[in-house]
Amino acid sequence: MTDAQQFISQIREDREHGASELARTCLDALARRADSIEVTSHEVLRQQLIEFAQELQNARPTMAAITNLIGEWVAAVERLPGGNVSILRDDIKSISRTLILASENAVSSAATHTAELVGTGKTVITHSLSSTVVAVFECLVGNVKAIVTESRPPSEGRRLAAKLSELGIETDFISDQQMGLFTKHADVALVGADTIAGDGSVINKAGTYLLALAARDRGIPFYVCFESFKYLDVSPTNVGLEQRDPAEIDLPRLAYVKAHNIYFDVTPPDLVTAWINEHGIRDESSFAAET
Amino acid sequence: MTDAQQFISQIREDREHGASELARTCLDALARRADSIEVTSHEVLRQQLIEFAQELQNARPTMAAITNLIGEWVAAVERLPGGNVSILRDDIKSISRTLILASENAVSSAATHTAELVGTGKTVITHSLSSTVVAVFECLVGNVKAIVTESRPPSEGRRLAAKLSELGIETDFISDQQMGLFTKHADVALVGADTIAGDGSVINKAGTYLLALAARDRGIPFYVCFESFKYLDVSPTNVGLEQRDPAEIDLPRLAYVKAHNIYFDVTPPDLVTAWINEHGIRDESSFAAET
Repeated sequence: MTDAQQFISQIREDREHGASELARTCLDALARRADSIEVTSHEVLRQQLIEFAQELQNARPTMAAITNLIGEWVAAVERLPGGNVSILRDDIKSISRTLILASENAVSSAATHTAELVGTGKTVITHSLSSTVVAVFECLVGNVKAIVTESRPPSEGRRLAAKLSELGIETDFISDQQMGLFTKHADVALVGADTIAGDGSVINKAGTYLLALAARDRGIPFYVCFESFKYLDVSPTNVGLEQRDPAEIDLPRLAYVKAHNIYFDVTPPDLVTAWINEHGIRDESSFAAET
Repeated sequence: MTDAQQFISQIREDREHGASELARTCLDALARRADSIEVTSHEVLRQQLIEFAQELQNARPTMAAITNLIGEWVAAVERLPGGNVSILRDDIKSISRTLILASENAVSSAATHTAELVGTGKTVITHSLSSTVVAVFECLVGNVKAIVTESRPPSEGRRLAAKLSELGIETDFISDQQMGLFTKHADVALVGADTIAGDGSVINKAGTYLLALAARDRGIPFYVCFESFKYLDVSPTNVGLEQRDPAEIDLPRLAYVKAHNIYFDVTPPDLVTAWINEHGIRDESSFAAET
């Protein structure tokens, strides 16, 4: 297996990072590969990098940030003039850096807007681990409490609890089945997203839909915060939901039983109170206006 | 620790059995104790057994079947004539046996009514492990499919999956966070109950409320089946929800994080399509008429 194939496989198998972080990791890998790959001409350099980029896009089809950021990277690389291989390498690295920065700034602005909307003195319940949601908590340190679900598998809520504890944020940690029970102790439900579909549906870690249902039933707002690179202008039914190895839920072999391990679910727009990205706050009417 | 105290502690700590089974185990223990306890008079026999019975009731306050069946046992034992210790022992054993049989028959009839209501050729999603729900599946063998949640902690859904596999029922096994996703593949949501409160609220394993929310949102019925010994004529807010050792969710020690492990949640009556017990099917209007 080549280094490139190994990296693609690592992205495909990653359970540690959210979509925004993975997208930036991919852009960084493209920059490093632009630097190191041995080529005979600028055409070959461009062609091989674009092929690598497309394989990265295909590795995580549920994650719009990867599709979009790498898509922008490809488009920009295609527009670059040919000629000198060394200049082309530098230009490609510069495109990667620019897009990484754009993504970081978008996450940071989305978090600031979200923190303002949440306000101070609130208890926020969340599901899964989103770097954007962590950024919101960073904005609110000293003025917020958290309720965090295990999010099993692979239980990335444990890592979120550890991060929030490092920030000194008082956190209640619960199994996923207690999510409905604890929503009544929260003022706000807040999640990140892997993808926002054309109608505003939120494709995010399985269980997000349950949190949205509980939030509606308890009468608290359900917010989703994300960089706008996560929009994908497709119907939510056209977003493939990743199925992972069912061995992650450790079921013994049973003749008539099949274990499932689908990592994402779809929260329909009518359960979402507000979508917050780097441009500000959107409510449902703005999606309705577009469709 | 005496045998009696050991048994009470065993009932308190039990994570294996549902409320109906535990209630019958308690009645059986009372019969065995009536046989074996050394006493000097019939008054002492009666008094010591009633004290033991009351300690058993207090061991699992969330489980109405224990409260009610032992309550009936105490009332019947109090009505017995005094006199001969040996005859009193026999009468007490007979009361235990009668109540065990009444409970078994009630579960069986409730299951039959429920199986009729569900009908054949359906996919049933359930949460936790209820012996009454197992009895429903037994009625429907060959004509039903199942979707079973892990129900973590303590993951008793694994034991349900094993039981259904033994029955030859095709079963999909999912982590709790996939519950909303898989409700769309089900025709019916069905659970047992630990207690049915005066207004029809269902006190059952944490996560039941989430399943009821998902069922409503997906437009499938949410049924609860139980023996009528599970009614408790109190407000749902007066049913204490058992908190178990948070170590069951294996969170590492973190300065600002507190793990919670509440075993039950409350599903309000407006989310329940039908309550089925040994007397037949009730809908919400019959609760409304009483309150």
